[in-house]
Amino acid sequence: MKFKIGIIGATGYTGAELIKLLLNHPGVEITAVTSEQHAGKKYYEIYPSFYDRLKLKLKKTNANELAKKCDLIFLATPNDFAKHFIPQLLRKNKSIKLIDLSSDFRLAKTVNANNKKYDTAYGLPEINRKEVRTSQIIANPGCYPTSIILALAPLLRKNIIDVESIIIDSKSGVSGAGKGPKQDLHFVEINESFTPYKLGGTHRHIPEIENELSKLLTVKKKSNLKIVFSPHLLPINRGIISTIYVSLKRNKRKKSQNEITKLYKTFYKNEYFIKILPPNIYPQIKNVRNSNFCHITPLVDKRTNKLIIVSAIDNMVKGASGQAIQNMNIILSLDEKLGLDTTSNIP
Amino acid sequence: MKFKIGIIGATGYTGAELIKLLLNHPGVEITAVTSEQHAGKKYYEIYPSFYDRLKLKLKKTNANELAKKCDLIFLATPNDFAKHFIPQLLRKNKSIKLIDLSSDFRLAKTVNANNKKYDTAYGLPEINRKEVRTSQIIANPGCYPTSIILALAPLLRKNIIDVESIIIDSKSGVSGAGKGPKQDLHFVEINESFTPYKLGGTHRHIPEIENELSKLLTVKKKSNLKIVFSPHLLPINRGIISTIYVSLKRNKRKKSQNEITKLYKTFYKNEYFIKILPPNIYPQIKNVRNSNFCHITPLVDKRTNKLIIVSAIDNMVKGASGQAIQNMNIILSLDEKLGLDTTSNIP
Amino acid sequence: MKFKIGIIGATGYTGAELIKLLLNHPGVEITAVTSEQHAGKKYYEIYPSFYDRLKLKLKKTNANELAKKCDLIFLATPNDFAKHFIPQLLRKNKSIKLIDLSSDFRLAKTVNANNKKYDTAYGLPEINRKEVRTSQIIANPGCYPTSIILALAPLLRKNIIDVESIIIDSKSGVSGAGKGPKQDLHFVEINESFTPYKLGGTHRHIPEIENELSKLLTVKKKSNLKIVFSPHLLPINRGIISTIYVSLKRNKRKKSQNEITKLYKTFYKNEYFIKILPPNIYPQIKNVRNSNFCHITPLVDKRTNKLIIVSAIDNMVKGASGQAIQNMNIILSLDEKLGLDTTSNIP
Amino acid sequence: MKFKIGIIGATGYTGAELIKLLLNHPGVEITAVTSEQHAGKKYYEIYPSFYDRLKLKLKKTNANELAKKCDLIFLATPNDFAKHFIPQLLRKNKSIKLIDLSSDFRLAKTVNANNKKYDTAYGLPEINRKEVRTSQIIANPGCYPTSIILALAPLLRKNIIDVESIIIDSKSGVSGAGKGPKQDLHFVEINESFTPYKLGGTHRHIPEIENELSKLLTVKKKSNLKIVFSPHLLPINRGIISTIYVSLKRNKRKKSQNEITKLYKTFYKNEYFIKILPPNIYPQIKNVRNSNFCHITPLVDKRTNKLIIVSAIDNMVKGASGQAIQNMNIILSLDEKLGLDTTSNIP
Repeated sequence: MKFKIGIIGATGYTGAELIKLLLNHPGVEITAVTSEQHAGKKYYEIYPSFYDRLKLKLKKTNANELAKKCDLIFLATPNDFAKHFIPQLLRKNKSIKLIDLSSDFRLAKTVNANNKKYDTAYGLPEINRKEVRTSQIIANPGCYPTSIILALAPLLRKNIIDVESIIIDSKSGVSGAGKGPKQDLHFVEINESFTPYKLGGTHRHIPEIENELSKLLTVKKKSNLKIVFSPHLLPINRGIISTIYVSLKRNKRKKSQNEITKLYKTFYKNEYFIKILPPNIYPQIKNVRNSNFCHITPLVDKRTNKLIIVSAIDNMVKGASGQAIQNMNIILSLDEKLGLDTTSNIP
Repeated sequence: MKFKIGIIGATGYTGAELIKLLLNHPGVEITAVTSEQHAGKKYYEIYPSFYDRLKLKLKKTNANELAKKCDLIFLATPNDFAKHFIPQLLRKNKSIKLIDLSSDFRLAKTVNANNKKYDTAYGLPEINRKEVRTSQIIANPGCYPTSIILALAPLLRKNIIDVESIIIDSKSGVSGAGKGPKQDLHFVEINESFTPYKLGGTHRHIPEIENELSKLLTVKKKSNLKIVFSPHLLPINRGIISTIYVSLKRNKRKKSQNEITKLYKTFYKNEYFIKILPPNIYPQIKNVRNSNFCHITPLVDKRTNKLIIVSAIDNMVKGASGQAIQNMNIILSLDEKLGLDTTSNIP
Repeated sequence: MKFKIGIIGATGYTGAELIKLLLNHPGVEITAVTSEQHAGKKYYEIYPSFYDRLKLKLKKTNANELAKKCDLIFLATPNDFAKHFIPQLLRKNKSIKLIDLSSDFRLAKTVNANNKKYDTAYGLPEINRKEVRTSQIIANPGCYPTSIILALAPLLRKNIIDVESIIIDSKSGVSGAGKGPKQDLHFVEINESFTPYKLGGTHRHIPEIENELSKLLTVKKKSNLKIVFSPHLLPINRGIISTIYVSLKRNKRKKSQNEITKLYKTFYKNEYFIKILPPNIYPQIKNVRNSNFCHITPLVDKRTNKLIIVSAIDNMVKGASGQAIQNMNIILSLDEKLGLDTTSNIP
Repeated sequence: MKFKIGIIGATGYTGAELIKLLLNHPGVEITAVTSEQHAGKKYYEIYPSFYDRLKLKLKKTNANELAKKCDLIFLATPNDFAKHFIPQLLRKNKSIKLIDLSSDFRLAKTVNANNKKYDTAYGLPEINRKEVRTSQIIANPGCYPTSIILALAPLLRKNIIDVESIIIDSKSGVSGAGKGPKQDLHFVEINESFTPYKLGGTHRHIPEIENELSKLLTVKKKSNLKIVFSPHLLPINRGIISTIYVSLKRNKRKKSQNEITKLYKTFYKNEYFIKILPPNIYPQIKNVRNSNFCHITPLVDKRTNKLIIVSAIDNMVKGASGQAIQNMNIILSLDEKLGLDTTSNIP
């Protein structure tokens, strides 16, 4: 018997990616897809690639109906929707499982419904698997935070870097900005260009990143962890590269390249989706696109005593819908890799 | 028990695509990958996306070893290799199955080995499935021919078009030109440009296309089928759109759009990978990329009494490695869709 | 003394291209730029590339003010604006010269104002220079029509092709679709894809193309000239390639490649911006981008007795703003090449 | 009378850009173009965009002939050529002026020829104009160094940053890697991807950058200036964005955004090609492509007390051939802007 899955906000890019991946997942079936804007249409009218493949019609989002039809629901909705709608769903179906791809619960920890508090988990399984496994509600991480937290976790857990030194220069494909047509996202504005945006500590992902990075610290004095975070927009559809600069603590500066590589390999030794590359192979977006893998190369810059950590993910997969399905697999007690074990496409 | 599969010429783009797809195929395991140029290296040294996923080392191509290790072999090799090597493989292993992705056997029909003649089949299953099913050696079609023959087959079988009127304007992504670094394929030369090439009847796929189109005719007088074929290079990695213009025979000019759409739908009604779109949805490369589907929209241009047929495929999948695996599934008596049932990625 | 120039609709892509080109033109100065949407802003707030280069503020479009400030006005406005506004301008300034980049006057021939009829000219100088020179109002041609008419003119003037046989397969960069943000023009929807649109005789440029092609015919019987026109959208910013297929008249089929090349070279021998390439060099978008040149290669397909003519232009320059300035130079009695004599950029 | 100009290595990308720009320069004429690989061909056979525009034939590089035919020569040649060839040219023509686009003289200061020492100048006019004006031999800066030195010069001259804190994350278009066909530069390898390369202090531009940055320091203790420099390859033809992170000296941390912006504006107040943008407009590659301008936005990150400086140039223009012509204008006592005063193209 297959688990019944609903997707709210099914016509955005993360919704489409969820459906694409779920259609290839042997343990589930899609039973509901909703869209306020496109209710009444067949899904292929929005995405012809699903012609003759997903025959469901899009419906308006209705808590009653969804709560009946679904064992688990993905919310691929704009911010500020899930926080109001998840309590409604829980009232209709107390055991329904919920994975929210928005930022609504990434900082908040609990949902009030049915006269009780439901705990939520921050759904980065490689860091947080135990908490995920026991939660009914998952806050799926942001794409930038995923690429950054995975890259820094081994160093922070080992407590070997200066937490005031973290500088993160991230570059993302355009799908991360969503599907809505905006002047800045017009093909002609993006193509053959490249641009930084929201520099100087203004990006909305910063609290999420700093919060999760601080939790990784095993020492008390956490309050001074502050990152410089500079996102840039790449003229490509998918993928994030984060190039991260940190200073080793003064008494840790003798770390060799081998020690650092080994530290990362050990930290992630049981993690299927994290690949620590040798120092002569750098992460490239083409090597992770359309896959749930995260490639990481940590490098020692001997001239300057800095560490440079480069990570690559597909923002739509490991950075959104793939990770959401990874979380689904965990909370449905399925094999964590199910439906996600594909290699990036080259060309 | 899984079938054992070898890939000769594993480091080209069609080789990489075969391996990517086969790793997700539940009925087979890869037992040999060869490359003259890169023998001795691990596969991920060529394609880091396979890091920790395909651990086989690349070896030199050795008929003896391959014949022992494999039930079926894909030859993703340059033209003129298979015609010499396939007889050697057949001498070492009389029952080995062979799928050649080069053009060596697309026009030739037989292979001599072991004092007998082996028949080959032109591996376009939607047209030729019976022949494929009973053949040990498959000539996998070219990418342009696949996109063109599928688009014209219903009309030719029904004998309703003027066979001297066929004009084919095809546009292909760059992966179709292969992996070798050439001046013309330098990023800067292709990007933000678009160019026709080999116009005026000079492209090497023309005999293959004309030969297969002629076979579809159910009338005797076939000799005058000649196509105008104009390939163009798109600044994208994958995908082919063929826009095809034909004149209906003088006594068939009254065909309505509905009749033509129905003719196509009927012709392909049992074909999973062929989607006939309604006349208001045109094929687009994004809707087939990274998938084995072929989208076709046939259109009646009432002003001029011409038919316009547009088809879209991914040249690396339905136009090469995906179709090769479709052929593999058929000759190994597996479900034809196995390992190939994925939707294109959007974004 | 420099001519004073105004641009109405200055913030669209053709407006920006006009300003870019006019800033490098030694014979003119820009005295007014208007935009309903952005009135009050400085131009660089819309296009930072003009920071510290064009210091004019954008104003609302005001006939009185424009008529006083300008010797010549470009209307880079949506369709249906110029037809109402040009009479107003003529009433305020009887000698003002006007170049309309919309389609308002491409089929119409006259404007009524000041109790008289003003003739307009279809501003394709290579075909129509005399008429342009003596006109006060110029209808600047569409981008597709420019690429097509220039490619077919020599054949139609010589009356050697079957006018029912013309099939035009055009491919355009995205800037041709304008600047407004639309779902279909979102970066992610265009990038790595390619799509036909408005097939089957439905594109709004068809009457313009057929009208101008018919005028080229030197024989009476013109009424049956009907084209098949298939536009496609390329994932690039600029440029159009038109690949055109025609049949020679039955009694002209012996034309050699040399004869056809010579016919084109002779026809355009005094035209600076038209380059007839030898048959071994095909037009490519990169060779005309950011330039006012049109590259044309006519080819004889001996196998099928068809002619294939390929033309390339930059849709923003020769297909819009560059051609508008070429027309300006003519009607202001300046050197026709002024401000337009630049080579395409490679890379 | 026009100055006579020769280009050695005319068929590379910087050579083609030089010729494109020089054809539009009113003060010079091109009298010689050389290429070892393509000698004997017409220039348009390599670049059809010059068809009927540059009629010179390519010749082998001959010191005697060049010394006679040219007042000034650009060397757009691989590293290690100029250092041997420039002394030969000086022996044949003692007053010939020479601009070397390779790295041969960027660190070296003198050339020995004719029994004397010729001084060379590092040709970054905004920093070094006086030295350039009086030199016969110019070492044209590298593309990355140009983007970086211009961004940091105001801070270093004012001595307000910690020189051990400089982290430079640069992103370049592909033309910077040259024209030669390599596997890594194949369209399919670059397109839809993004990759860091030569991380950890290994890029060959580091000594040039550190040398020039150190010269800007007005204090004695310079030896500890060491940069972290991380170049990345963008899937575009042209352009560099450098995002640079520095710490203000402990006693300078109170600098406001206004003070920093003003510091930059004052420093560059007479520099036509440098535009200091307000803090709400960031440099974007599209706003400088095909232009000689450098856009810079300096930003104060108040949360972390760091400065972020973003600069954008076109690597082929301000980063190579445009700057070379700017240097030419200076040493030929022409207006420094001549032939270079064009706005970037949008779209």
